[in-house]
Amino acid sequence: MVRVGDEVSNRQVIFRDYVIGSPKGSDMYLTTGTIKLKVPEGSNAVLVKNLYLSCDPLMQFFMRKSEGPNGYLYYTPGSVSQSQELQFSYGVAKVLDSGHPEFKAGDLVWGITGREEYSLITKTTDTLIKIQHIDVPLSYYTGILSMPGMTSYAGFYEVGTPKKGEYVFVSAASGAVGQLIGQIAKLEGCYVVGSAGSKEKVDLLKNQLGFDEAFNYKEEQDLNAALKRYFPEGIDVYFEHVGGKMLDAVLLNMRHHGRIAVCGMISQYNLDEPEGIKNLLHIGFKWIQMKGYTHRNYYHLYPKFLDRFLPYIREKKMVYVEDIVDGLESGPAALVGLFSGRNFGKQVAVVAHE
Amino acid sequence: MVRVGDEVSNRQVIFRDYVIGSPKGSDMYLTTGTIKLKVPEGSNAVLVKNLYLSCDPLMQFFMRKSEGPNGYLYYTPGSVSQSQELQFSYGVAKVLDSGHPEFKAGDLVWGITGREEYSLITKTTDTLIKIQHIDVPLSYYTGILSMPGMTSYAGFYEVGTPKKGEYVFVSAASGAVGQLIGQIAKLEGCYVVGSAGSKEKVDLLKNQLGFDEAFNYKEEQDLNAALKRYFPEGIDVYFEHVGGKMLDAVLLNMRHHGRIAVCGMISQYNLDEPEGIKNLLHIGFKWIQMKGYTHRNYYHLYPKFLDRFLPYIREKKMVYVEDIVDGLESGPAALVGLFSGRNFGKQVAVVAHE
Repeated sequence: MVRVGDEVSNRQVIFRDYVIGSPKGSDMYLTTGTIKLKVPEGSNAVLVKNLYLSCDPLMQFFMRKSEGPNGYLYYTPGSVSQSQELQFSYGVAKVLDSGHPEFKAGDLVWGITGREEYSLITKTTDTLIKIQHIDVPLSYYTGILSMPGMTSYAGFYEVGTPKKGEYVFVSAASGAVGQLIGQIAKLEGCYVVGSAGSKEKVDLLKNQLGFDEAFNYKEEQDLNAALKRYFPEGIDVYFEHVGGKMLDAVLLNMRHHGRIAVCGMISQYNLDEPEGIKNLLHIGFKWIQMKGYTHRNYYHLYPKFLDRFLPYIREKKMVYVEDIVDGLESGPAALVGLFSGRNFGKQVAVVAHE
Repeated sequence: MVRVGDEVSNRQVIFRDYVIGSPKGSDMYLTTGTIKLKVPEGSNAVLVKNLYLSCDPLMQFFMRKSEGPNGYLYYTPGSVSQSQELQFSYGVAKVLDSGHPEFKAGDLVWGITGREEYSLITKTTDTLIKIQHIDVPLSYYTGILSMPGMTSYAGFYEVGTPKKGEYVFVSAASGAVGQLIGQIAKLEGCYVVGSAGSKEKVDLLKNQLGFDEAFNYKEEQDLNAALKRYFPEGIDVYFEHVGGKMLDAVLLNMRHHGRIAVCGMISQYNLDEPEGIKNLLHIGFKWIQMKGYTHRNYYHLYPKFLDRFLPYIREKKMVYVEDIVDGLESGPAALVGLFSGRNFGKQVAVVAHE
């Protein structure tokens, strides 16, 4: 049992260098440092014990050199100080000591933390949120009640805005965000089809998550034909997570006034050159709106989001599939697996139990 | 002087067959039929003498076989009955006889009419509008006060929504819509740069239309570099009229929360296969909105549009450059010229003077 003020060993995942292309296991290594379990005098930092670490595709943009969305370097490769520089790694943690008025020892929090056992979090503004409801699994605060949940909520209600009876298509539909989008769409009375990359994922979508239909994109020779089969009347709203050939096929099948909510395009991130999209003329022909978004623009909606999602979870109207691996040391492989679709649902690594 | 009830000769432009690719002069021919200058008993049609015919890029979609945005055939090739089937040809006309309660002999109107001297217009709903203000040039009702004007108004205020001080880029900036977008943007306090395809057009933009900067895209080896030169801080709003390489370069230069209002992509319409757009990842990275639109969704705003544009025209705060050719027989060449950028401003053909 550790106490505030102790100096303890701290296992950490360190990035060896800026990552090129998809992250690989060899880009990371485990090391053991030490940390004093106390925030510096006069600081408003928070010192936490990490419980769950989230593995998210968007993390890769922050691992690269000068290629992040804002074009700057996010950390010092090979340095144990990385955890204080990192701005991409979400998790659930327990506060051990706090110089910040909003947090106190014993609080559970979710937000941006380090990939290590204990983290001193110095940047708390908007990136650390106190957990108020603990009658749901704590791991949910890396997924359905955290960044992916916010993303699905904002994507559905603020960007794609499907109406009752509309035809909705979700790619990467068993992923952290896709599975939620599909379930909200069903709760709102839409017709929902999802695509995924294995028979098991397709079964999950149809049999457990309530999608009207689902298909394995890897088994389709012609994505345009597949979409025509599932959407003979066309697609009203597409939730875009993959890009490339799927996007090109979707554009051909969009209805007038259709909306494309762009959360990500994971198939394109690690190509030498992205695939060219040829059917953009349909944006003009059919008055389609295509809009990129991030949860970060919608933090102000977090209370409204909880008001909607918590009852759904408690009443079991919404389920959340998690792929939980055990131990900080399992984190690197779990992160790498995201880019080949190895995960089955939201990918999480347990660092410690309370 | 013709009178109502006369049977008179009627010169007509006839499409020989459905057009493939860019329209060519040989796709059309002139013929002379006859027409009785009276609406059939009991009909609510309107019989008009055509004064100005508009030449618009969007017309080509209605000349094709099964390739119109709604996928059907718009007319019978080689038939003199075409004028009653056509749904794409805008013009200004004078009513000679009317069975419709909203129109009477002597009224001036704009809307969808035939490419001929006299037309019996049977489909008037939403496509024929009575001209109320004749203190401005009548030809303006093929352009600044008609479909292109509505398009620029809707594109600016409903789709792109640039704010004071924002950085605005307009392609095909000397065209029927582009020149208006640029002028509105200046009136609203934006920084505006336009691209066009000749030195004369660039001079027009800079010296007569008040654009802050303009460049000839044909003289730029690297469109990305050109845009970086004119927009060192990036583009907030892009008004898209060309597509292809320009769009790809624009995506690289968009700012966070940028908007792309897609009116058309004229460089792509007549290629065997559209060019692939490679930089769509930026839509997700920078939370860009890209939205297609048409004036047809905004007819309800016509009175508001007139309230804003008429004072600007009367006070000479807005100018409109027209490329007017004389005679119905000049219409086909004028239409064909649009697709090689031969026109200098809004292309109009005079059929008759009142």
